[in-house]
Amino acid sequence: MNIYAVVMAGGVGSRFWPRSKKTMPKQLLKIFDNETMIQATVRRLKPIIKDENIFIVTNQIQADEVKKQLNFIPEKNIIIEPFGRNTAACIGLASIIIKSIDPNAVTIVLPADHIIKEEDVFVNTLLNAAKFAYESEGLVTIGINPTRPETGYGYIQIDEKKISDNIYKVLTFAEKPNYATALRFLESGDFLWNSGMFIWKVETILSEMKNLMPDLYEGLEEIEKHIGKNSFQEALVRNYGMMKKISIDYGIMEKSSRVYLTKGFFTWSDVGSWEEVYQLSEKDNDGNASFGLVYLDSVMDSYIYSPNKFAAVIGVDNLIVINTDDSLLVCRRDKSQDVKKVVDYLKMNKLEQFS
Amino acid sequence: MNIYAVVMAGGVGSRFWPRSKKTMPKQLLKIFDNETMIQATVRRLKPIIKDENIFIVTNQIQADEVKKQLNFIPEKNIIIEPFGRNTAACIGLASIIIKSIDPNAVTIVLPADHIIKEEDVFVNTLLNAAKFAYESEGLVTIGINPTRPETGYGYIQIDEKKISDNIYKVLTFAEKPNYATALRFLESGDFLWNSGMFIWKVETILSEMKNLMPDLYEGLEEIEKHIGKNSFQEALVRNYGMMKKISIDYGIMEKSSRVYLTKGFFTWSDVGSWEEVYQLSEKDNDGNASFGLVYLDSVMDSYIYSPNKFAAVIGVDNLIVINTDDSLLVCRRDKSQDVKKVVDYLKMNKLEQFS
Repeated sequence: MNIYAVVMAGGVGSRFWPRSKKTMPKQLLKIFDNETMIQATVRRLKPIIKDENIFIVTNQIQADEVKKQLNFIPEKNIIIEPFGRNTAACIGLASIIIKSIDPNAVTIVLPADHIIKEEDVFVNTLLNAAKFAYESEGLVTIGINPTRPETGYGYIQIDEKKISDNIYKVLTFAEKPNYATALRFLESGDFLWNSGMFIWKVETILSEMKNLMPDLYEGLEEIEKHIGKNSFQEALVRNYGMMKKISIDYGIMEKSSRVYLTKGFFTWSDVGSWEEVYQLSEKDNDGNASFGLVYLDSVMDSYIYSPNKFAAVIGVDNLIVINTDDSLLVCRRDKSQDVKKVVDYLKMNKLEQFS
Repeated sequence: MNIYAVVMAGGVGSRFWPRSKKTMPKQLLKIFDNETMIQATVRRLKPIIKDENIFIVTNQIQADEVKKQLNFIPEKNIIIEPFGRNTAACIGLASIIIKSIDPNAVTIVLPADHIIKEEDVFVNTLLNAAKFAYESEGLVTIGINPTRPETGYGYIQIDEKKISDNIYKVLTFAEKPNYATALRFLESGDFLWNSGMFIWKVETILSEMKNLMPDLYEGLEEIEKHIGKNSFQEALVRNYGMMKKISIDYGIMEKSSRVYLTKGFFTWSDVGSWEEVYQLSEKDNDGNASFGLVYLDSVMDSYIYSPNKFAAVIGVDNLIVINTDDSLLVCRRDKSQDVKKVVDYLKMNKLEQFS
């Protein structure tokens, strides 16, 4: 069994403004430690996947930075979408390219900008799921055991009867719930967080696309004819442009009868806000995480980032301060979801040099 | 009667960090409106004092900026202290220089970094006090009617029996009080804020220095001999260096029997902290005063200054945010006195490029 990876790196994270920019979204930033999030994502795969089997799907704006950060990945493995078409098209495109190399490939599809701890558990989870996907016609998704009534994630309900080693049949997908529903999910015990990571044979996902998304599949077949030819780019632009913007969850996973779940017993986060970055950061005895030339006086439970300029913070708590070369964010931790609105404001007011 | 002014501009305001720097203290900054505080101080005097009668005492570091900001003042009127020796020496030096021009001069001595509103009332207060000082041998100080139990100012107690038009005999000077004492002062009705502004004849103040500070006076006499000669600078450095660092309040006003007070019935502040700047600034309906490219979302009662960089502030209240090119201050309004400690920290940690 040959395992391939498809790392989806097209995001334009606006929630990490002012650190994230159109040209430098979350997955290309060193949010934690000394590696960028996409570097960490690829590093975690190295124990089970050869570099030449790792594919990255990104866009024109980010391609150069992606190649720089992952210079050990063959350049031909960096797939550049001419336009964003959501995850179904993205996965379809990567799948036909991998199929052209290895029709029996098992692929692990995962976002570039997630945090995962207990990496050995993660890798074993992938291997076990890959084995099941290889031997079955299953579409396997990774569900995370919920630790809190999180309203920021989608949920997946499973039939608790185990089908094989850590493999369960999926009953339903649930959108991001309100708090009461999230609590009910948590208590029920059979709802897990939808991590957006998938394991399947390219053959399996493509045949399900043929059944459930025939228009999309037709476009993919058109593109497939030109793989390895000079006409590829032209055919890609023409057909990709016509594809509908549909997520793989909505287009395939919620409709297919072949969907399975494997439980991920490792710490996972999609790090959707500065608040989550704070939660995942190491803190001092006052509950502060600070980076750069920072002076703190009577500060509690705050996240201070000021790499290039001196920052003095006095008498505050539960605050996020992000001080970059061109912009400043000062935000209450429980308001960090509202950072998105700043990027919208900058766009509306023709201040995009700051976004 | 010829009126002269001595504007004391030697301060190294650390309380307005990061806007104030050693080379650019409070009095040289545009904290309000479009003029610097020293420009406002001099402008307020123009209705009653000719430019050539206005003298500025400053130091080597600030001299060039002072001359630039007050380019209408004759350069010879910019007196440069070789070292800071507190207000008694500063006033003594200015007094012998003015005496050499006009032995009968009445001088108004005032700090460069105060805020005064109702400027017509202020000017009339000065004129009335100057008239009294000219006709008497009195040392007149301006006392401000206290409006709150302020613990940041010194107080002056008067004998309520009026001596002449708005002139009272001073009974005692009181240091900055604690809150309970400040309340008692406020209720007593005969305690006023010590504004640090003085009106007297040079002849009067110098004769009191001769009586009460003979060592200082001796040094002044030595310097006086060299006024207008090439030897002046050398004599100044030699004698000024030997003078004790004593304030005019402690050295003269608290000891002299010729001390009078005139009440200032105008809005006055020595603007000792960012909190006072906030108090004196115009605010929007949410109680915010903001300057620069600023985005506010759910922000109340805050002061935001970010002239050159975009600043987004979300979900905070009672905060001071000062975002300069090299430094950032984020401080709860009621902690703004602690900004001093940042400058001490920068000095201690060899980070003076930021102070």
